[in-house]
Amino acid sequence: MRASRFHISTLKEAPADADIVSQKLMLRGGLIKKLAGGIYNYMPMGLRIIRKVETIIREEMNRAGAIELLMPVVQPAEVWQETGRFDKMGPELLRVKDRHGRDFIIQPTSEEVVTDIARQEIKSYRQLPKNFYHIQTKFRDERRPRFGVMRGREFTMKDAYSFDRTVEDAGKSYEAMYAAYCKIFDRLGLTYRAVAADTGAIGGDKSHEFQVIADTGEDAIAYCPTSDYAANIELAEAVALVAARAAAAQAMQKTPTPGKSTCEDVAALLGIPLERTVKSLVLATDTDKGAVIHLLLVRGDHDLNEVKAGKIEGMKDGWRFATEAEIVEHFGCKPGYLGPSGMNKPVRVIADRTVANMSDFVCGANEVDFHFTGVNWGRDLPEPDLVADIRNIREGDPSPDGKGVLAIQRGIEVGHVFYLGTKYSKAMNATFLDETGKPALMEMGCYGIGVTRILGAAIEQNHDEKGMIWPASIAPFAVVICPVGYDRIEAVKAEADRLYAELQAAGIDVLLDDRGERPGVMFADWELIGVPHRVTIGERGLKEGKVEYQARRDAAATPVAVGDIAAHVKAALAA
Amino acid sequence: MRASRFHISTLKEAPADADIVSQKLMLRGGLIKKLAGGIYNYMPMGLRIIRKVETIIREEMNRAGAIELLMPVVQPAEVWQETGRFDKMGPELLRVKDRHGRDFIIQPTSEEVVTDIARQEIKSYRQLPKNFYHIQTKFRDERRPRFGVMRGREFTMKDAYSFDRTVEDAGKSYEAMYAAYCKIFDRLGLTYRAVAADTGAIGGDKSHEFQVIADTGEDAIAYCPTSDYAANIELAEAVALVAARAAAAQAMQKTPTPGKSTCEDVAALLGIPLERTVKSLVLATDTDKGAVIHLLLVRGDHDLNEVKAGKIEGMKDGWRFATEAEIVEHFGCKPGYLGPSGMNKPVRVIADRTVANMSDFVCGANEVDFHFTGVNWGRDLPEPDLVADIRNIREGDPSPDGKGVLAIQRGIEVGHVFYLGTKYSKAMNATFLDETGKPALMEMGCYGIGVTRILGAAIEQNHDEKGMIWPASIAPFAVVICPVGYDRIEAVKAEADRLYAELQAAGIDVLLDDRGERPGVMFADWELIGVPHRVTIGERGLKEGKVEYQARRDAAATPVAVGDIAAHVKAALAA
Repeated sequence: MRASRFHISTLKEAPADADIVSQKLMLRGGLIKKLAGGIYNYMPMGLRIIRKVETIIREEMNRAGAIELLMPVVQPAEVWQETGRFDKMGPELLRVKDRHGRDFIIQPTSEEVVTDIARQEIKSYRQLPKNFYHIQTKFRDERRPRFGVMRGREFTMKDAYSFDRTVEDAGKSYEAMYAAYCKIFDRLGLTYRAVAADTGAIGGDKSHEFQVIADTGEDAIAYCPTSDYAANIELAEAVALVAARAAAAQAMQKTPTPGKSTCEDVAALLGIPLERTVKSLVLATDTDKGAVIHLLLVRGDHDLNEVKAGKIEGMKDGWRFATEAEIVEHFGCKPGYLGPSGMNKPVRVIADRTVANMSDFVCGANEVDFHFTGVNWGRDLPEPDLVADIRNIREGDPSPDGKGVLAIQRGIEVGHVFYLGTKYSKAMNATFLDETGKPALMEMGCYGIGVTRILGAAIEQNHDEKGMIWPASIAPFAVVICPVGYDRIEAVKAEADRLYAELQAAGIDVLLDDRGERPGVMFADWELIGVPHRVTIGERGLKEGKVEYQARRDAAATPVAVGDIAAHVKAALAA
Repeated sequence: MRASRFHISTLKEAPADADIVSQKLMLRGGLIKKLAGGIYNYMPMGLRIIRKVETIIREEMNRAGAIELLMPVVQPAEVWQETGRFDKMGPELLRVKDRHGRDFIIQPTSEEVVTDIARQEIKSYRQLPKNFYHIQTKFRDERRPRFGVMRGREFTMKDAYSFDRTVEDAGKSYEAMYAAYCKIFDRLGLTYRAVAADTGAIGGDKSHEFQVIADTGEDAIAYCPTSDYAANIELAEAVALVAARAAAAQAMQKTPTPGKSTCEDVAALLGIPLERTVKSLVLATDTDKGAVIHLLLVRGDHDLNEVKAGKIEGMKDGWRFATEAEIVEHFGCKPGYLGPSGMNKPVRVIADRTVANMSDFVCGANEVDFHFTGVNWGRDLPEPDLVADIRNIREGDPSPDGKGVLAIQRGIEVGHVFYLGTKYSKAMNATFLDETGKPALMEMGCYGIGVTRILGAAIEQNHDEKGMIWPASIAPFAVVICPVGYDRIEAVKAEADRLYAELQAAGIDVLLDDRGERPGVMFADWELIGVPHRVTIGERGLKEGKVEYQARRDAAATPVAVGDIAAHVKAALAA
């Protein structure tokens, strides 16, 4: 490509409403242009990257046996009503009426439509397994779109859907997609982690997120540097930090702790480590017979994991924090001095695994300005009603696989593989005839990759003060040739044209900057845009038979003989 | 591709609601699947064709210097309000409110958004010319969607928009797109015609439609087989069929024609050729001072062209047929016996070019049951107020370029090039600084190709009783290998696998039908789907060292030596 036949448009400053670095750089580099909140034009420079990402995804999906089709953007409400999502989904589902007043939606995803296709197209077990995918425009009417392409409203997503005969086969489809995703993110040149994830409200019970590692990521990932273990922080298993309960060594005593309503303050007052204290959290669940009160206990230096709390038996249908009135009614005391011993009314006591193994601990005495010290399970109060993993892991915790200790890093979710089971096939009666001629529900999985989001994530991971730094596989151009004085120095023009032709002939995606701009302008543009390899051709260097090569991350340029430059660039690309 | 890794789904019968052959065959061949009225899933077989069409379009657009970007499907109302189209467009513009109640539209086209981009991105004449295009999902809420992908609601369109400094430059951009379109439709392997077209309500004054020739086409095209002339019938220029007015030879006479109110009946009664009669049509235009009545005269064997009538000075803002009351008021006579002589009140007389050169003609006498014969302009009535081309051409008319006579054929519009002028740049104030530093409006053109519509048009043009017949450049597969007994005969499997590998290695898009189906099933499927080249491999043939080759249009298969088949297929593809 010649710059004069392309559209290059860079800005010195990002618009004031850009709030993260990837968004700022994409706007400054002319990759995107805002049309409305969360709705962007993908400008020529950005679209080249999108197309390269799509091509890698498509190749690996096809290689894994998935079959591409294209489902509509505008979808009739009927299929969404079959699964109940037309009503259940909030205002992020953009609903629209056609000229006849019929309900449609602008697709945020396509489970319903693909299941509708499958139930019509797949009659027999002989046609299974099947995996259909498309790369298509999606819309989610985010309440507050932000972060550019990271949380936009209109975006491009690859979504695949597998259909299988059995749970076991569905597991194989899941593994095939997991493996394909690893290949895709490897080829995209990104540092990423496949992370066990919460299955949330979508249903199903097996799920991994593919997270691009970046300090600015929204998600926290717990991982074990010495093993394969990785999980979203919401899901990462927290083991008991005390292996077994030690024998009681102290007597329980009511101790004055005036005004000390936090574990930190109590530990400081008593001169004991925070790890000896126990924190009380009071949750409520609403039932037909009124509210049930749950006391959740975590060690003083730990935090409650609210996702884990929602997975406890009896709390799966939703919970809330108890009101102060409910607390006073059950504990006879206001928050700040609560504990599992000496309550007014019975509450369900749920101890974190670590708390359940503690002895001689400190907790609230259910009396303002007092705590108990030397508290021991069994002796001073009954055993907990339930012991469960209810806390967030912390850096340094043992990995649940026993192969090291956990570290935490931040990531940006760019892909998700999800075992759905029969959630959709059941709702839409998507059956096939099995080997015995009987109808059976298809086992499903869904597999998404946020195509446009990958651009933002790649930049969050790879940038410096000059601009973006693209992996060669998805850079808008792999190589840029910057001739100094292209429009006025014959020798420069001749060498630039020659090298351009040679690299093009080798199938390299090269841009020739024939705009005639000053070197400073060219360099600033291409460093901002993040083309990974640059060749500068100047009159003085040519007199000595030299041009300059510089990789985007290099601090300085390297002189290379004119005769060697093509081979030099090819070697750099192959590295 | 192996059939076992693909999705092949054919039907013996098309659904009852399919109304044209292309729609029936696309549904039967499993290319599309209906989701809602005018909204289709593009199934894997159909998507392959769409992608090939898109690739050809993209390559030629890029070669012509156009630059690809991607504009959103969901567009804010604001830009559409700037041009007035948000209000002016009818219910075919799908409008939607977001969660905050703001107005958006689902794009049917992107003039507004691209002009918004241009006015921000293009500051100087140095940046011009520029041509931006995208290939994107469009939506038009057709009142009655029909004909499958030919008149659907959701469809894929390539739309390009050129921006230029001057009318002259805009003409060059227009010519470049015209030339690119010719290359595109040549490469698509379709028989087509570029046809001068009416510019209609979009504005602008230069326009060509690219019509795929098919007997079932909606549009009629007038063309000259011995020259380049071609025009939509609405626009095709009708020349005077009488070169010059002959001297009067008859006296004007009022002749009784009881009950004969049509030219045909009058000619029959009088025993004269229909070409001697003149037909009267009464039109009205509404002005502030009341209705103005226009009498349009065409020869008895000609038809009024209503589009041409709308282009006559004084009728450009719209016209209607006059009411019977208006006719009686001005002519003193009811319709059927009207003429340009002896009216009650003055009307504006507009004669077709042919009528203006007639002499001794027959027309109504403005008295029931009477016509005048021997009528002559100037002698018996004043010269017409206006002479104009107001009739439809007929097959056999002289071509307006003087290079032959016109023929008529039917076509399907699949592309359109359009000079827009400053219609949009003016409404949206899209200016650039010209050489003198003064702001000037950009001259625009727009250029559309209906990507998904091309599939329907190609089938309407190329099919037989067995099914579709695809040009090799856009066939879902260029070659299919049909091994008879792939699943049970080792020699057949070995030869099929070998040929498949050889053709694949040569870069040929080949499908190996490894389903193990009977030959009859395989042949019916591939003839329906319309793969252009087929190789059949059978046990008996192999024993003689032969396989069979058959092109989709061949009546029978040709035996070819095993060692020659790859070369034979390559030669057929190159032909």
